Amino acid sequence: MRALVTGGAGFIGSHLVDRLVSRGDSVVVADNLSSGVLDFIQAHIDSGNVEFHNIDLKNLEHLIPLMDDIDIVYHLAANPDIRLGTRITNTDLNEGTIATYNVLESMRINNVNKIAFASSSVVYGENAPMPTPENHGPCIPISLYGASKQGSEGLIGAFVGTFGLQAWVFRFANIIGERGTHGVIFDFIHKLKADPNRLEVLGNGLQEKSYMEVGDCVDAMLHVVENTNEPMNLYNLGSNDTCSVRNIAAIVIRETGCKSAQIEYTGGDRGWAGDIPKAMLDIKRLQGLGFEVNYDSEDAVAYTARVLIKEIMG
Amino acid sequence: MRALVTGGAGFIGSHLVDRLVSRGDSVVVADNLSSGVLDFIQAHIDSGNVEFHNIDLKNLEHLIPLMDDIDIVYHLAANPDIRLGTRITNTDLNEGTIATYNVLESMRINNVNKIAFASSSVVYGENAPMPTPENHGPCIPISLYGASKQGSEGLIGAFVGTFGLQAWVFRFANIIGERGTHGVIFDFIHKLKADPNRLEVLGNGLQEKSYMEVGDCVDAMLHVVENTNEPMNLYNLGSNDTCSVRNIAAIVIRETGCKSAQIEYTGGDRGWAGDIPKAMLDIKRLQGLGFEVNYDSEDAVAYTARVLIKEIMG
Repeated sequence: MRALVTGGAGFIGSHLVDRLVSRGDSVVVADNLSSGVLDFIQAHIDSGNVEFHNIDLKNLEHLIPLMDDIDIVYHLAANPDIRLGTRITNTDLNEGTIATYNVLESMRINNVNKIAFASSSVVYGENAPMPTPENHGPCIPISLYGASKQGSEGLIGAFVGTFGLQAWVFRFANIIGERGTHGVIFDFIHKLKADPNRLEVLGNGLQEKSYMEVGDCVDAMLHVVENTNEPMNLYNLGSNDTCSVRNIAAIVIRETGCKSAQIEYTGGDRGWAGDIPKAMLDIKRLQGLGFEVNYDSEDAVAYTARVLIKEIMG
Repeated sequence: MRALVTGGAGFIGSHLVDRLVSRGDSVVVADNLSSGVLDFIQAHIDSGNVEFHNIDLKNLEHLIPLMDDIDIVYHLAANPDIRLGTRITNTDLNEGTIATYNVLESMRINNVNKIAFASSSVVYGENAPMPTPENHGPCIPISLYGASKQGSEGLIGAFVGTFGLQAWVFRFANIIGERGTHGVIFDFIHKLKADPNRLEVLGNGLQEKSYMEVGDCVDAMLHVVENTNEPMNLYNLGSNDTCSVRNIAAIVIRETGCKSAQIEYTGGDRGWAGDIPKAMLDIKRLQGLGFEVNYDSEDAVAYTARVLIKEIMG
C-alpha cells in the first residue's frame, strides 16, 4: 500500500503517518510546512520510510507527479486556525476548497481512486441537535473554515459521482493531543506561560464541545477505511461526551500548577464570530463498525494538557 | 431599492430584471455574457432602467466598485451547463464557488448586507427522499455544478455567521421557460430542427424531475425575500409534481409537429455521469408563505416548448 498524506507533517497528519509507517505502508508526505513541523516526521524521513515533498497544494502542477502509483490519498492539509477567517477571508478558500479540488483533479488525471478526507463537525453549523448525526440537515456552516470543509465535501462527492472515485469523509470533533499546534488547550498553556497569575478565557466559558484524542482519531480513520466499502463513506469521528471551556481552564490550571491564576472571561456565548458554542457528534455509525475511543473528552483534555505542558513549558 | 443582479443578462436573471424594473427598483447588472445575452435586457438598458457592466466575477477588483449603494445582491451568475463538469472540471469552481466568494467579499468590503442566491436541488445529491425537504441530510452532490452550489451555500453561511450578512438561499428545481439557453427541452428542439425524423434521448427516458416556469421562479424569489427576515433563509423553489423525460419528448414532438420523429434512447438510468435521475423538491415551506405556482411541471414543459420552438425554429 502506497499512501499520500497531504498535511502529513501537521498535527493530525504526523500521527497518521506514524500509524501508516508502523503497519508497513509506503508513505509520501506533501506539506508546505505552513503549519506542519518537519521534526514531527523527521525520524521517518531519516529511516527512509517517508518520502517528503515540500509542495503547495494550491499548485496543481506540483501535485500531479506525486500521484504516481498512489493507492490512497489521506487529504488532511488545511489551514488549522478556524479564527483566522474572521480577519482574512480567502485563506480557507485557497488552502481548503481549491487545494481539495487540486488533489481530486490530480487524482483523476493519474487514475488514483481512493481518498480519505478530514472534514469537520463545523459543517453542521449552529443549532444542530446534540449529539449531531451524519444525516443532519440543512448544514449551514458559519465560519470560513467550515465553508471550506463543506465545499471540499461537495467536490469529493462530485468526483465520486462523476468520475468513480471512492471516498471516506470524516467529520472530526475537536481533535487534541501530542504535537497540537493550536486550539484552546494550546492557547491556555501559552497564556499561563506568559503570565501564571492570569488566564483570559474567550467567551463566558460555557462553550461545551466534544474532544477526541488524536491517536483515537487516526485509529478511527484507518478502522473505517478498512471496514467500509461504499463509493462514499461519511462518518462522524468524536468521543461520546463533552467538556466545557470552564472545565478545560480548571484542568490546565491544575496540570500547570498555576494555582493562583485568576480566570478572566471576555464574555458572550462564544469565543469569536463564527465559533460554534456547543458541539457534540453522534458517533453511533463509528461505534457500529466496532470502534471505541480510548479517551473520553475530559481524559483527552487532561492527557493533552500534560503532554503540551511538557512541549511548551519544557 | 438598488439591486445588483449578477448573471442579469442570463435566462433566469433577465426575468428577474424584468420584475425588478417593473416594480421600480434601480437595477445594476453584472454579466460577462459567457451565457447571458445582452438582447434579453437591451430594452431596459436603452430606457435607462438598467445599468449594465460587462465584468467577470472571477475578478474581485472589478466587483468592488459595483457594490456602491447597493441594497441587495441577487447572485444568479453561474455556468448553466451541468454536463460541462464531466469534461472540464474547474469551470464550476471558478464561475461558481470562487465567483460567489468574490461577490461576498466585495459586499463585506462595501457594507452591502443582503444577498439572494440561486442554489440548486442538485445539492441534495442522489437517493434523497422525494419530495426532498430543505432539512434533508447529508447533502452529497454528485456533479461539479452541484459541488459549486454547495460550496457557495457554505460561503454564504460563513459570511452570515461571521460578518452579519443576511441571506436568502434558493434551491431551484429545473427552471424552464422563455429565453431558455440550455436543458432538455432546448436540446430536443435543436435536435428536431436538425433532423425532424429522429430524436435522440439521453438515458432511458425514465428520468423524472420537477420543472418550474421561470416567471414562477422569480416571483417566488421576490415573494420569499419580502416575507422572511431570518439571518439565513433557505427555501426550495419548485412545482408540486414531476414530468418524465419520455413525457417531455412526447410534448416536444407534439408541439413541433414532428409526428414522424423516432425516439432513440441512449440507455442507462441517467443522461450523463453526475446527472440525478429523479428529483422533486418539497415546497411546503414556500407554500407556507402563501405562494403558489402558476404552472405545474407538465404545463411548464408544454408552455416552454411552445415559446422555445418560436425562438429556435422561428
